[in-house]
Amino acid sequence: MQIAILLYDGFTSLDAVGPFELLSRLPDAETVFVAEKPGPVRNDQGNLALVADRSLADVTAPDIVLVPGGPGSRQTMTDETVLRWLRAVDATSTWTTSVCTGSLVLGGAGLLKGRRATSHWLALDILGLLGAETTGERVVFDGKYVTAAGVSSGIDMALHLIGRIAGEETAQTIQLLTEYDPQPPYDAGSPDKAPAKVVEYWRAQAVTDDLVRTGDQ
Amino acid sequence: MQIAILLYDGFTSLDAVGPFELLSRLPDAETVFVAEKPGPVRNDQGNLALVADRSLADVTAPDIVLVPGGPGSRQTMTDETVLRWLRAVDATSTWTTSVCTGSLVLGGAGLLKGRRATSHWLALDILGLLGAETTGERVVFDGKYVTAAGVSSGIDMALHLIGRIAGEETAQTIQLLTEYDPQPPYDAGSPDKAPAKVVEYWRAQAVTDDLVRTGDQ
Repeated sequence: MQIAILLYDGFTSLDAVGPFELLSRLPDAETVFVAEKPGPVRNDQGNLALVADRSLADVTAPDIVLVPGGPGSRQTMTDETVLRWLRAVDATSTWTTSVCTGSLVLGGAGLLKGRRATSHWLALDILGLLGAETTGERVVFDGKYVTAAGVSSGIDMALHLIGRIAGEETAQTIQLLTEYDPQPPYDAGSPDKAPAKVVEYWRAQAVTDDLVRTGDQ
Repeated sequence: MQIAILLYDGFTSLDAVGPFELLSRLPDAETVFVAEKPGPVRNDQGNLALVADRSLADVTAPDIVLVPGGPGSRQTMTDETVLRWLRAVDATSTWTTSVCTGSLVLGGAGLLKGRRATSHWLALDILGLLGAETTGERVVFDGKYVTAAGVSSGIDMALHLIGRIAGEETAQTIQLLTEYDPQPPYDAGSPDKAPAKVVEYWRAQAVTDDLVRTGDQ
């Protein structure tokens, strides 16, 4: 079983590496990082480079495709080379998946029209504009399309997928080996749990970002 | 504030990237991946390469040093070049930290003698041999030494550290932006929660691994 994880400039590293760490432990999995060109790809903060070992042209029929999110998704969601590749591999994939704003890239490829899907909480409105039926759930299955909420949610998505693919015991084994027994010291991981003023600040920030971006174009 | 994350052949990627994603969002943080030689460093499964942008010689006084775990820790815990560097940076660090079997490397450098510390549940016995007072807790503070349990626990460690360094609101903000609101579909993330036969199988496996390793030397 081949698992392809897409990389692009400005991806968020945990979106990719969280589910990678769990999915790549599936029995008989071959996991490949793939980008337009092979070589190092920089993250959103510019302080991490992950190597894409394969080019898009090298990976034509993965069983699972995973698109991470990140600020770079805004450019990638209209990058025809990537979108063409996504449509092509989606035609034969068993699972087409995303974490965070990776769903905007799937949406840009037209793959989420009319489907239930999720994204980072600050990007749900844009996901809706791409034709998806948005939901604030953490992991959303709609047929073979699986989308996860922001950044760290890809770990939960991976466990769900492993359970479906290889059964509960394999999922529990991988959860045990990665010691995924979360004990965050705060309970602020979603907009309905975080302090209201923090949520409002970031909502305002996101709108400003979009205005600036629109002005740039 | 400089945060240095050590890379070595055979590291486990989520050990490094989990806390990286959160810690690097600290205000004024400069986060650097560092290894004996700059360039791509392969993970434990050989299917991911993260770029070390700096060599050990380039990074002499980080405020935070973080050592991830992984099967490669067994070689690294006796690698005098790395251990010398760790002792040197520890002399001026504000926080010296590890995830998973990264604590075996700190222990190899003699930094955990008589200190409360943790590691991957399968490596607690070896950590004890290095002079640490082991505990099964997920995140352990002993003065400036902070150790986390297996793989995914580095995310929780990062939130604890952010709270101590920058306060609760910054920690909550970073938790919200990374949407760290864990909802694992199974509850098997520690040896006291996973099915007993899975735990026993892996305990036996770890002993076999150690015997094979000892036989190799």
